[in-house]
Amino acid sequence: MKTKPLGPIPAGYMAIDGELAIAGRKASELVEQAGRTPLFVYSREHLDARVADLRAALPSRIGVNYAIKANPHPDVVRHMEPLVDGFDIASSGELAMTEAAGIDAKRVSFAGPGKRDDELEAAIAAGVTLNCESEGEAKRSLIIAHRIGKTPKIAIRVNPSFELKGSGMKMGGGAKQFGVDADKVPALAKKITAQGAEWRGLHIFTGSQALNADAIIEAQSNVLNLAVELTQEIGKPLPKLNMGGGLGIPYFPGDEAVDLKAIGAALHERVSELPDELANTELCLELGRYLVGEAGVYLCRVIDRKESHGTTYLVTDGGLHHQLAASGNFGTVVRRNYPVAIASHFDAEPDDVVNVVGCLCTPLDRLADFAHLPRAEVGDLVAVFCAGAYGATASPSAFLGHGPAAELLT
Amino acid sequence: MKTKPLGPIPAGYMAIDGELAIAGRKASELVEQAGRTPLFVYSREHLDARVADLRAALPSRIGVNYAIKANPHPDVVRHMEPLVDGFDIASSGELAMTEAAGIDAKRVSFAGPGKRDDELEAAIAAGVTLNCESEGEAKRSLIIAHRIGKTPKIAIRVNPSFELKGSGMKMGGGAKQFGVDADKVPALAKKITAQGAEWRGLHIFTGSQALNADAIIEAQSNVLNLAVELTQEIGKPLPKLNMGGGLGIPYFPGDEAVDLKAIGAALHERVSELPDELANTELCLELGRYLVGEAGVYLCRVIDRKESHGTTYLVTDGGLHHQLAASGNFGTVVRRNYPVAIASHFDAEPDDVVNVVGCLCTPLDRLADFAHLPRAEVGDLVAVFCAGAYGATASPSAFLGHGPAAELLT
Repeated sequence: MKTKPLGPIPAGYMAIDGELAIAGRKASELVEQAGRTPLFVYSREHLDARVADLRAALPSRIGVNYAIKANPHPDVVRHMEPLVDGFDIASSGELAMTEAAGIDAKRVSFAGPGKRDDELEAAIAAGVTLNCESEGEAKRSLIIAHRIGKTPKIAIRVNPSFELKGSGMKMGGGAKQFGVDADKVPALAKKITAQGAEWRGLHIFTGSQALNADAIIEAQSNVLNLAVELTQEIGKPLPKLNMGGGLGIPYFPGDEAVDLKAIGAALHERVSELPDELANTELCLELGRYLVGEAGVYLCRVIDRKESHGTTYLVTDGGLHHQLAASGNFGTVVRRNYPVAIASHFDAEPDDVVNVVGCLCTPLDRLADFAHLPRAEVGDLVAVFCAGAYGATASPSAFLGHGPAAELLT
Repeated sequence: MKTKPLGPIPAGYMAIDGELAIAGRKASELVEQAGRTPLFVYSREHLDARVADLRAALPSRIGVNYAIKANPHPDVVRHMEPLVDGFDIASSGELAMTEAAGIDAKRVSFAGPGKRDDELEAAIAAGVTLNCESEGEAKRSLIIAHRIGKTPKIAIRVNPSFELKGSGMKMGGGAKQFGVDADKVPALAKKITAQGAEWRGLHIFTGSQALNADAIIEAQSNVLNLAVELTQEIGKPLPKLNMGGGLGIPYFPGDEAVDLKAIGAALHERVSELPDELANTELCLELGRYLVGEAGVYLCRVIDRKESHGTTYLVTDGGLHHQLAASGNFGTVVRRNYPVAIASHFDAEPDDVVNVVGCLCTPLDRLADFAHLPRAEVGDLVAVFCAGAYGATASPSAFLGHGPAAELLT
């Protein structure tokens, strides 16, 4: 029977008593603790290990920011608070989340092409750095800051003329809704500082979800060059450079983990020879998916096992209302299988070929097509990996009235 | 400058004082009433007109069911309550919505491939008809009904061997997670009725979002033939036949409204010559998108107008967190433009070419590409049409922390 390959299961997951264990705890125990399926489990061990790997690879001068849009669960954000240097937010809703997690506004920067006036006001009042996306937004920020009697902290998000090659989402290169075209940045920087903004530097994001280290190294090099060039034109010291993210995680068959050591080595070399313009600049990477993606597992339960015209379906109580990207409906053209396993029989040999589907009444609700897996029965647990980023909040949880999944940090 | 065409604006929208009016009320008034943007507005006028058109076209014998997953907003469900005959639900969450709207359980049927035990129990206890999706589900239903001392009302959802040609979503033809393969239906029907279930008939859904009347007519004819054939094999009168839906609405350039009169005429002919097996069968169509899709408009506000490398962007406070399908990320391979307009200048001549984008920090967040529209400035309202179905609840409203849109029935 035809099979379609599954994506690679991330490192650090093993079997206990035959079951998938997450951070040393069996899937069935975690479900019991949460009280129900479907359930997102986030592993502290994985979060800690990933940050430790980054710290070991990167020059100490380069900070690590967490883009909380990847996973804004309160327990995750609180866990990341002491681990990373800064936090990137994308709305006033996310500002409230950082405040709830006790994160100092000095560590927070706010990017996003459509910041409303009330969002700008909340951010300026709190003392958050605005990654300014346009001349119009700069103007609105200055007016609001003046009205409320605060000095706005403004960095400029640059739309660079280069891109991160091979990235899943291109955020630079050509016309974009993000940032200010590079050639217009010096004039805007001079203008806003002349009008009383505190200059907070540059944010240069070139793409995300890239797995090729050479491409990332090249993009980071281009980012540093562009920052030097713009700083020369601006004529003021550059206080901070957010170099963007870009580091992806393997989701699909054939994907390989990014070579973090190679990226770190290249950054060590670049940082040791930075020109005077960037001598005192605070540098950081802004990462979301790379920090939390592999730390999350989505667990759902088999509700039905059925045959139709010779094909076996495992119908689960999960689905695209929690795992839109895994269903192939978010930014992908051709659906491929995420890493999926039978959590209840994690170390068993595959002896069955099944379509794993969700409970929604739509043919879009697919979790794995023609997957070669151990045999599963009604009641068994299915695991979808790489569920730590852009899972729960990036899915239509109200669709068909099933409601959100449970979430648990362990 | 290159432009990309926009989808056709549905009938029944006009300008008052230059502004888009929905059910006779200006967009700005509606936003004022709701207190904010983004806002989904649902028009009673459109809902009423669509049902009236259906009633006029269809034989009186064919009832109209509303599949509330298309738009479960409480005010919409309450408005539909006296207009349609039955309601189709897809979860116990939607069961609770029908109960809240005061809808008698006798009018409700429940389809969905992954019904949990607690959902089956709630539905059986309430007296809802189960559209049974598998032998396993039938067995669980009978066990649960026995335990709670109720007679379960069971129809069988059939996976037909034919499909609705040209439908946006195929729900029949070949192996599927939906329903019971047609050849296994008679045995299952006999078994469940022998075991004490109340026989409620057949549910045959062949596809959705089809615009070609001939394809719909052919599918409906096949559905009736299959129902006759299965009923002969089952050897009991068929109490009810849910003929499925399939009627689509035009979203994209070149799409044309389905020829409802042709479909109605064909059904009149078929219904007048139904064989004895279906002489007393209650017939209905199950419609969602067709009933409510064109009745909804999504209004968002221009937050920024910016240029990047010669391209103009209108950045709005809306986006794919409310309008996933319009962004091209839900069940579509190639992104095309929905019908989009500048609501503040609805009757003005187009004199600008813009990319309308959402406020999210992702390049996926596109509402209209290279759209030829009247010039809009910051503060103007943008309208995305065809937003009445699979909008608010079929989008990741928690994504990036902006929260859900407002919703208003007018």
